[in-house]
Amino acid sequence: MKAARLYEYDPAMNVDLKIEDVRPPTITAPHEVIVKVGAAGLCRTDLHIIEGVWKNIMDTEGTLLPYIMGHENAGWVEDVGSAVTSVKPGDAVICHPHRSCGVCLNCRYGHDMYCDHGLFPGLGLDGGFAEYFKTNESSVIKLNTGITPLEVAPMADAGITAYRAAKKAAKRLNPGGYVLLLGIGGLGHIALQVLKHTSGARVIAVDREPAAQVLAKELGADFVLDGGPNLIAEVQDITGGGAHVAIDFVGEHGTENTCWQLLRQGGELIMVGYGGTVEVPTLDLVAREIKIGGSLVGDYVELVELMEMNADGKVKMHQTEYKLANINQAIDDFKNRKFTGRGVIVP
Amino acid sequence: MKAARLYEYDPAMNVDLKIEDVRPPTITAPHEVIVKVGAAGLCRTDLHIIEGVWKNIMDTEGTLLPYIMGHENAGWVEDVGSAVTSVKPGDAVICHPHRSCGVCLNCRYGHDMYCDHGLFPGLGLDGGFAEYFKTNESSVIKLNTGITPLEVAPMADAGITAYRAAKKAAKRLNPGGYVLLLGIGGLGHIALQVLKHTSGARVIAVDREPAAQVLAKELGADFVLDGGPNLIAEVQDITGGGAHVAIDFVGEHGTENTCWQLLRQGGELIMVGYGGTVEVPTLDLVAREIKIGGSLVGDYVELVELMEMNADGKVKMHQTEYKLANINQAIDDFKNRKFTGRGVIVP
Amino acid sequence: MKAARLYEYDPAMNVDLKIEDVRPPTITAPHEVIVKVGAAGLCRTDLHIIEGVWKNIMDTEGTLLPYIMGHENAGWVEDVGSAVTSVKPGDAVICHPHRSCGVCLNCRYGHDMYCDHGLFPGLGLDGGFAEYFKTNESSVIKLNTGITPLEVAPMADAGITAYRAAKKAAKRLNPGGYVLLLGIGGLGHIALQVLKHTSGARVIAVDREPAAQVLAKELGADFVLDGGPNLIAEVQDITGGGAHVAIDFVGEHGTENTCWQLLRQGGELIMVGYGGTVEVPTLDLVAREIKIGGSLVGDYVELVELMEMNADGKVKMHQTEYKLANINQAIDDFKNRKFTGRGVIVP
Amino acid sequence: MKAARLYEYDPAMNVDLKIEDVRPPTITAPHEVIVKVGAAGLCRTDLHIIEGVWKNIMDTEGTLLPYIMGHENAGWVEDVGSAVTSVKPGDAVICHPHRSCGVCLNCRYGHDMYCDHGLFPGLGLDGGFAEYFKTNESSVIKLNTGITPLEVAPMADAGITAYRAAKKAAKRLNPGGYVLLLGIGGLGHIALQVLKHTSGARVIAVDREPAAQVLAKELGADFVLDGGPNLIAEVQDITGGGAHVAIDFVGEHGTENTCWQLLRQGGELIMVGYGGTVEVPTLDLVAREIKIGGSLVGDYVELVELMEMNADGKVKMHQTEYKLANINQAIDDFKNRKFTGRGVIVP
Repeated sequence: MKAARLYEYDPAMNVDLKIEDVRPPTITAPHEVIVKVGAAGLCRTDLHIIEGVWKNIMDTEGTLLPYIMGHENAGWVEDVGSAVTSVKPGDAVICHPHRSCGVCLNCRYGHDMYCDHGLFPGLGLDGGFAEYFKTNESSVIKLNTGITPLEVAPMADAGITAYRAAKKAAKRLNPGGYVLLLGIGGLGHIALQVLKHTSGARVIAVDREPAAQVLAKELGADFVLDGGPNLIAEVQDITGGGAHVAIDFVGEHGTENTCWQLLRQGGELIMVGYGGTVEVPTLDLVAREIKIGGSLVGDYVELVELMEMNADGKVKMHQTEYKLANINQAIDDFKNRKFTGRGVIVP
Repeated sequence: MKAARLYEYDPAMNVDLKIEDVRPPTITAPHEVIVKVGAAGLCRTDLHIIEGVWKNIMDTEGTLLPYIMGHENAGWVEDVGSAVTSVKPGDAVICHPHRSCGVCLNCRYGHDMYCDHGLFPGLGLDGGFAEYFKTNESSVIKLNTGITPLEVAPMADAGITAYRAAKKAAKRLNPGGYVLLLGIGGLGHIALQVLKHTSGARVIAVDREPAAQVLAKELGADFVLDGGPNLIAEVQDITGGGAHVAIDFVGEHGTENTCWQLLRQGGELIMVGYGGTVEVPTLDLVAREIKIGGSLVGDYVELVELMEMNADGKVKMHQTEYKLANINQAIDDFKNRKFTGRGVIVP
Repeated sequence: MKAARLYEYDPAMNVDLKIEDVRPPTITAPHEVIVKVGAAGLCRTDLHIIEGVWKNIMDTEGTLLPYIMGHENAGWVEDVGSAVTSVKPGDAVICHPHRSCGVCLNCRYGHDMYCDHGLFPGLGLDGGFAEYFKTNESSVIKLNTGITPLEVAPMADAGITAYRAAKKAAKRLNPGGYVLLLGIGGLGHIALQVLKHTSGARVIAVDREPAAQVLAKELGADFVLDGGPNLIAEVQDITGGGAHVAIDFVGEHGTENTCWQLLRQGGELIMVGYGGTVEVPTLDLVAREIKIGGSLVGDYVELVELMEMNADGKVKMHQTEYKLANINQAIDDFKNRKFTGRGVIVP
Repeated sequence: MKAARLYEYDPAMNVDLKIEDVRPPTITAPHEVIVKVGAAGLCRTDLHIIEGVWKNIMDTEGTLLPYIMGHENAGWVEDVGSAVTSVKPGDAVICHPHRSCGVCLNCRYGHDMYCDHGLFPGLGLDGGFAEYFKTNESSVIKLNTGITPLEVAPMADAGITAYRAAKKAAKRLNPGGYVLLLGIGGLGHIALQVLKHTSGARVIAVDREPAAQVLAKELGADFVLDGGPNLIAEVQDITGGGAHVAIDFVGEHGTENTCWQLLRQGGELIMVGYGGTVEVPTLDLVAREIKIGGSLVGDYVELVELMEMNADGKVKMHQTEYKLANINQAIDDFKNRKFTGRGVIVP
């Protein structure tokens, strides 16, 4: 089959994925599932993988190279292991990015992402920038009638990461409250839609890109700001004391120390983007009783919930499609922000 | 001032309120507030008061008669006591129906309706079917700019009772879940709007009246049923196992033993309407792990939140207006369901 | 191996289990686990099985007979299927009573007991009143160092059912609050211990048996009542308004309509025992805003948590042991309340 | 009356409070309460006040000087304003340190410490290092029968600050989990007792002082560590992955960047002490999904709950008493850690 493989890490990112013919994956254990890829989202983490950010964590010797990247996958079940009962060949499915064991205590508590034995296809082992892709039964979710893999692939990672953060935020919000979203890109625009349907609160969207501002407005943001030097005063003015919750989808270049200053007493910052370092005086934490917490990829059931919102027409992914053969062009365009929303690779 | 007073209880309800001239209320304690009534909602509880349902609880000797009814009040502040700091004459306000003490432990926990020393104007003491009405500072909420008392008066009781139940429901619901509302009247249509904005779940609206069904559809109900003899099968079919939450706004004439049968394992029934008696085998409670709980009028902060949703255009009261002079006609029309939504009395 | 099998249902319970030699279970699927039984608790549900209460639900044709009863099992792993990774032969384990699939959405939410494909060994298929017993990997929990199967077997069902109810109660309780436990038997005495360590509230234990009253006192109950005709007044007197939470471990013979009358406004009744029918006016539910809900067997993670409390010395099972050969004697003694706490069968 | 007043701020703290005769406070508003002081706790914040840390926040011109310090007060009601109904002269009471308005939205949500118009006697206005002290009705709590002001005064601030943090922690803890307390002083020893009764989790107490270690052990800490250079490894070893929750009662001298490293994936750090600056890479926040949040003085109802635990014998304050005339000696001893637990001033 055709697949796009990474052969070396390069901090300068002057390296292309190689499109080549490889042997398709086959079933080798009772709970495995082979998926014929319908579409695979392109993620900022893919850029970080190429840059070698994850090398030190996942592949210190570089011995895992080459491998097929792609961890936001949806398609149709092609083959299943002997113990699989919940899906069958032909079913349209989306794949949670983590292959969790289902047996460890973290899994039993429903914390799929904390699984003691989890695997992350597309990062160190073969992913979905290919015609076929292998995962296991515990990762697949059947699509609702009428939903195609192409429409939803990036929900598998971008979508649920945003959904998880938005769900945490919604739990702390009341009608009349304010939630601030910093960065209305592939994740932020999903969080915005989720919050409009689940919180009753007012959404302040912040992005310096005009196109992202337009998208935010279209999706129902109550206030749209450009994140300029007056941000703190603007937010103070709108909210009369600060936001109840903020979600930072950037997490670097200074935003990581902006958002907690935008919170109201008792407020919470949810950090999704990363790269920078938070520096906050303990006196601010205590006297204003604010909280700063990271948020990871969502759990399997969160992907189920997001797919239901999508099926109900409440949340849609905005995306631009590229053929697998043009994946390096897609990566270039992503780096240069040539498209808005999410880039998606189609075999 | 003109006021409508009740002079006797009558189970047959063949009794009119008397429209007469009475002395307007005056400030007699530091936290009191006099409100010039802009509008006062007509509530099913008003019918029950006339019928004498509350006589045994509130007025066993009948010595409180005559008094002015009306507990869903909004208007403009006319005068304030010496200790009042949060409102001033001229402010447009809505009045929480309960005058809570603010000092007892229930109040300190925010449970206004459990106040050890609460008063309920319009039930045993003078209410708002009049030109002026007395309450205290702890009950009033300033209206948002551009909101008039007439638009929102029934939010004060019908609105927050529905809001409280909907908020409880939303906490238990996830996207993809189902919430069933039985009775899309003055309360149910508010709950429907609140749930559409705060839960991400699907709403099944049940009402036998065609006009209520139309209203439900307009307000975004995902499914509208007429509550006929196939209700259980219909709900089972839609939900694939039963509703996650049901709210019963009727609570009598058999509905009180229908809703818990519509729940999914682990589901919860929230009972708002009353009159009937729930009979449920403990085996059903345990094996299906369902829960049945009553819900009371909302707290002060819940009225604040509802008013914010109203100011944001998310929740609107559907109502029909009557002049104070025609209040007995309004009561008759209410008994005979001659109008949909809420009836409102304007001085 | 020796095993005790049920050959017929008998409402009068004049039927003995037959102790006989049967073929021990063997591994037939990749996730199965064979356990050499160390001990198996005797449960009130076992009496109900013999009586035929479950016949109509599980075995309408009676074709499942004969089978080995016993669903509160602990022992040592004897053999494992090819896919089992978390336990190995020789490990001391306790067995959650439900064999859940781990794949359905209920399982993914952590609701093991709602599993779409669950099995309950000892009820329609072979259980643990035998030398060996078959379950699957998703049901077993390794015992902490120094804990023997004999000490903990009834934790597998009696223990977690009580634990789950106590955990629900603790979430609603604050220091200074009151929780009432009706029935201090095999379940109630576990709930009492759990609540003393996790709620900060005061425990009112109610049981008409003097031995149970003594046990309650020893385990730290703050108040012990005999459940006589003055119960409502006594509870009112102690609590000044009613209990914040009550747990009814009996659920029949009238208790099912006593406990909700013992609640304070806003209180909750958790029903664990069953048999009777709750009859409650909707007016009581609404005006007092009380809640009545059933509670089922606990989930796998709740058994893990209970075993940790046991390992820490915070919760102990009080029990009486019988040899497997004497199981019919044990059943007789149970029916006649000849022992306190739990009866346990040892192969 | 005798009172200890502060006349100047001094970063070097070479300044004594002046013990002098001042006019006792009198009732000037309807909700005020005069308390005859029984005891007043000495708090680290008192040292910070003298140092001038709060000058820039509360008293930029220094015009509030001189005033009576002391914000942890208990005593007997001496006189009440005309509108006070919940206490009467002679009642033994403890005083929440904040005089909240009860009217603003923060108060209505029960967030006393966020009150828009709150006052903090002892910090900028006269406090309780005196024979009489003025507060308002919304701050006083009647003591349970048999409890004396002397036993509980520091509960008013030290106690509830610890209680609030412990309550937050308990909500996130399950049996078998680990909570780490850094600093077993006036606050930490209260948190330890609260957690032992409300969480079911294991407590790891960390303090470099041998006396504090002994106290921790006596109060039931499951593990006691000295906070040496191997702390991270020791905690890792005990917990097998890190603590589920940590509470930092120090918050400076490096602890502010130690505790978040002691957390398990998904864990939370509650910061109570302050002084330092937290520096945490966003990658750690996100990949480990940890949370860092400050915790303020507890609300009124939290003081009520703590007083109930105290009345039940579950939580006791360890303290050393000084006469008001010797308050400067007490301050010196506090600075030099000459006593363990809390110092208390008795008029």
